[in-house]
Amino acid sequence: MAGTKQAATTGSEPAFACPVSPVVDIVFSRWTTPVLWALHAYGRQRFVELERRIGTITPKVLTQRLRQLERDGLVVRTYHPEVPPRVEYEISELGLSLAPLFAHLSEWGAAHLGQVEEARRAYDADPARR
Amino acid sequence: MAGTKQAATTGSEPAFACPVSPVVDIVFSRWTTPVLWALHAYGRQRFVELERRIGTITPKVLTQRLRQLERDGLVVRTYHPEVPPRVEYEISELGLSLAPLFAHLSEWGAAHLGQVEEARRAYDADPARR
Repeated sequence: MAGTKQAATTGSEPAFACPVSPVVDIVFSRWTTPVLWALHAYGRQRFVELERRIGTITPKVLTQRLRQLERDGLVVRTYHPEVPPRVEYEISELGLSLAPLFAHLSEWGAAHLGQVEEARRAYDADPARR
Repeated sequence: MAGTKQAATTGSEPAFACPVSPVVDIVFSRWTTPVLWALHAYGRQRFVELERRIGTITPKVLTQRLRQLERDGLVVRTYHPEVPPRVEYEISELGLSLAPLFAHLSEWGAAHLGQVEEARRAYDADPARR
C-alpha cells in the first residue's frame, strides 16, 4: 500500500497527504452516496422519483447534491425542452467507475458491521471506558 | 451488484436501504479517514505523534475521533501505567480489514480525480449552468 512509501518520509512532517480523503470529499459526503446509489440501482430518473426513493432527503439538499455531482462529472442532467419541460438525471460513465468501489464497500459492511456492533456493545458495557 | 435486487422491489417505497451508507458513517466521517490512514501508515503511536502527523486536526477532534474508532473496534488503545502514564493507539485487526478498501479508494482517486477536475472546469466555464 501507499502507506509504505509515506512511512519512509520524515515522520514529523505535518499535514501528511491522506490519499483517501479527496475521494471521500467527493463521493462520501452525507447524502451523496444514497443519491449515487439510487441512480445506479434505478437508472435515469426525474427529480421527484429520486426524492421519493431516498425518502428522508429534503428537496433543497437533493438539489445541492445533484448540482455537486453534476459539477464533479458523476451525474448527467438532461433537459427536455417540452411543455412542461422535463429534467432527468442519470449516472455518468465516470460515476459508473465507482460501482466496483461501492460493491466493495457494501461487501465490507456485510462482512464486518456485526463486529462493529459487537465492539460497541463491549465498549459501552465497560464502565472504565466511559 | 445488489442494486439489481433493489430495482426489483417496488420503486416507490421511500427510504430504500443504501448498503454503502452505514460503512460511510463509520469509516468516512471527516477526520476518521486520515486518523485510520496515519495509524495504518505509521503503526502504533502516541496521541501527540498522531496530532503532529495529521497537522491540521485539533486535539479535541482527534480525541473524539479516537474514542469513536475505539468504540467501533477499529482502533486499540493501550494504557501503560508508568510514571508518567503512556497511552498508545494502533489499528485493530478489524481496522486492518479496511486496508484493501482504502487501497481501492486511493486507486480510484489516482485514476479518476483528474477527470473530476476536468468536469468541474467545464461546468464552471459554462454560463448556462451556473
